[in-house]
Amino acid sequence: MTDADFQKAEFEERLDRAQRAMKAVGLDAMFFTTEAEVRYFTGFRTLFWQSPTRPWFLVVPGEGQPVAIVPEIGAALMAETWIDDIRTWASPHASDDGVSLLGDVLKRFSLVGMPMGRESSLRMALTDFERLRNGLPGAGFSDCTPLVRDLRMVKSEAEIDVLRRICTIASDAFDQAPDLFHVGQPLSEAFRAFRIALLRAGADDVPYLVGGAGPGGYPDVISPPGARPMQPGDVLMLDTGATLQGYHCDFDRNFAFGHADETARAGYRTLHRATDAALAVARPGVTCAELHRTMQAVIGQDTGDVGRYGHGLGMQLTESPSIIGFDDTVMQPGMVMTLEPSMVLAEGRIMVHEENLVIRDGEPELLSRRAPAELPVLEAAA
Amino acid sequence: MTDADFQKAEFEERLDRAQRAMKAVGLDAMFFTTEAEVRYFTGFRTLFWQSPTRPWFLVVPGEGQPVAIVPEIGAALMAETWIDDIRTWASPHASDDGVSLLGDVLKRFSLVGMPMGRESSLRMALTDFERLRNGLPGAGFSDCTPLVRDLRMVKSEAEIDVLRRICTIASDAFDQAPDLFHVGQPLSEAFRAFRIALLRAGADDVPYLVGGAGPGGYPDVISPPGARPMQPGDVLMLDTGATLQGYHCDFDRNFAFGHADETARAGYRTLHRATDAALAVARPGVTCAELHRTMQAVIGQDTGDVGRYGHGLGMQLTESPSIIGFDDTVMQPGMVMTLEPSMVLAEGRIMVHEENLVIRDGEPELLSRRAPAELPVLEAAA
Repeated sequence: MTDADFQKAEFEERLDRAQRAMKAVGLDAMFFTTEAEVRYFTGFRTLFWQSPTRPWFLVVPGEGQPVAIVPEIGAALMAETWIDDIRTWASPHASDDGVSLLGDVLKRFSLVGMPMGRESSLRMALTDFERLRNGLPGAGFSDCTPLVRDLRMVKSEAEIDVLRRICTIASDAFDQAPDLFHVGQPLSEAFRAFRIALLRAGADDVPYLVGGAGPGGYPDVISPPGARPMQPGDVLMLDTGATLQGYHCDFDRNFAFGHADETARAGYRTLHRATDAALAVARPGVTCAELHRTMQAVIGQDTGDVGRYGHGLGMQLTESPSIIGFDDTVMQPGMVMTLEPSMVLAEGRIMVHEENLVIRDGEPELLSRRAPAELPVLEAAA
Repeated sequence: MTDADFQKAEFEERLDRAQRAMKAVGLDAMFFTTEAEVRYFTGFRTLFWQSPTRPWFLVVPGEGQPVAIVPEIGAALMAETWIDDIRTWASPHASDDGVSLLGDVLKRFSLVGMPMGRESSLRMALTDFERLRNGLPGAGFSDCTPLVRDLRMVKSEAEIDVLRRICTIASDAFDQAPDLFHVGQPLSEAFRAFRIALLRAGADDVPYLVGGAGPGGYPDVISPPGARPMQPGDVLMLDTGATLQGYHCDFDRNFAFGHADETARAGYRTLHRATDAALAVARPGVTCAELHRTMQAVIGQDTGDVGRYGHGLGMQLTESPSIIGFDDTVMQPGMVMTLEPSMVLAEGRIMVHEENLVIRDGEPELLSRRAPAELPVLEAAA
């Protein structure tokens, strides 16, 4: 018996919001194949999605209860959720991996929404999806990406509570930096030490940890660590998406060893000020584009290779919206966002700064413990 | 600078095998959107795929070098791989998230293969894929799932070396069970302790850890842990996909606390014997169906909810083929497989046993350290 992440009322509320939105746009049902959407409506949480072998399906009708169409291996776990209508098949299957079963559920609907737009994937064989579509000549499939984004973007207080806890855990782990990281340590060992510190501080898992270290900065923000030992004058950046009950924090911290050059220190201050500027305007009614403009005015550069200055955060490491010039999404109370200004310090040398927050009526609530205003310097002694 | 996981010759060999196979089936190019396939041909490895925001594309032509079409945020890391032809765009993009750039690369091909079959996903917006297809009226898209499966299924000695190392690391961590797990410990804390032990033993990451604990068995094999403290008579199972350089082990171990009932001990022996039986016949030329039949004959049950008795293993936690009655895939030297017999012990109580191996000329090479023949019993003292 696993422990439910949320009360049943949380899921009833999600379904109610979804069904009202579906009615407004004339959708008879929505159909999902991806982890975050299935979990959002059911509470079904497992790492088993990492196995690509079996497809998983969820149908949310315009009226009535969701229908889970899942491989038998997931039946016991799905039965522990609030979902009552669970249909299973023996998967892997020689010729029909759930497609007929799914078709039986979908055939009574005329207009079926599914995420087909920005940030979406189709987690089933394309040949099976085409077979499904061909078997439902009476059904139209339409993109419901905006509807699902609008639902998931605003978090409940129950979700925010989990997000607050994982951000506190990661803040606690980052606070141990002087004991974890040192000159002479290979970057890969710094990563290992930080993963262990996050788990010890209470994280369930550390699915995401990237970073870099180099003289006065680092070349990118998505790399796995190499074996190069860290040196005096290096700036180390670690960016973590640790999880609690399947919800992510996503923020980074920068540290210099022994000393930092003026470029690194000034860059750090600029990014810190850009974050302060965004925090000062992050209020309901402000758009992503305005947040972007606010940070860019402080930084004095464009977004460079990273492409944006933050994003939504929740069950996924990154979620809609994007803090970028073309995103007119309006901030609402309960949205959980990252502020992630970055800048090029020199050729092949960048710096990124990131905090997590909740949009509230009035001032936003910081979820990450605010980074210090000056680039922290760790002892250089090996 | 990150460290390359493999020499350039490894990728040249992969490309050469692919292009010979493409020629045999008349494909002009292959097109990929998913992590494992992009990494297989390029060596590009990052956890950043967890962010759903940006699509990533790779085109492997029938002749010449692969072309990576990637967001600018990945340009620096892709430039460290052996790939020379890298095309980038500013992503996220308001209206064209790489689709035109991808179309420009694909327009010179008539028949483009992409994975559309078993175990495949489309990691790009379906609307963008349809736009791509509509913009290439001269190109046909066909399913290349079998071709890619056949390539990836047989591992190089360089890949096997990494897989051997991560299996040894996980075996070392499991050997610490008496020090890690105890009566009174919440299952969630057992998971935490085991993750830390895996990292300390040398794993880069523990993306997958599932299991269960209950009187004489556990209800399923895909659940996250609950907070219930373990009791004398419980059987604890932990199944881990830890990674090294992006390659997975995938095996489990069972432990009883203090004592185990005869059903659990007998079930364990049966699964151990089923694995021995499979190891005795796992030779080049044998099919997955024969391996399945061999294990089923010992177990005396069908595969139940789990649905199969093992699978391929490598960059992904589970890969093709499946050890199941309908899979006629023939074992070849260099295939890395899991043997994963399972059985129902009683209503709501199952047991799973798993080992990892390489098919060799002659006897297979075990990668996991063989589990003991009798269910291990840990001290019950809290």
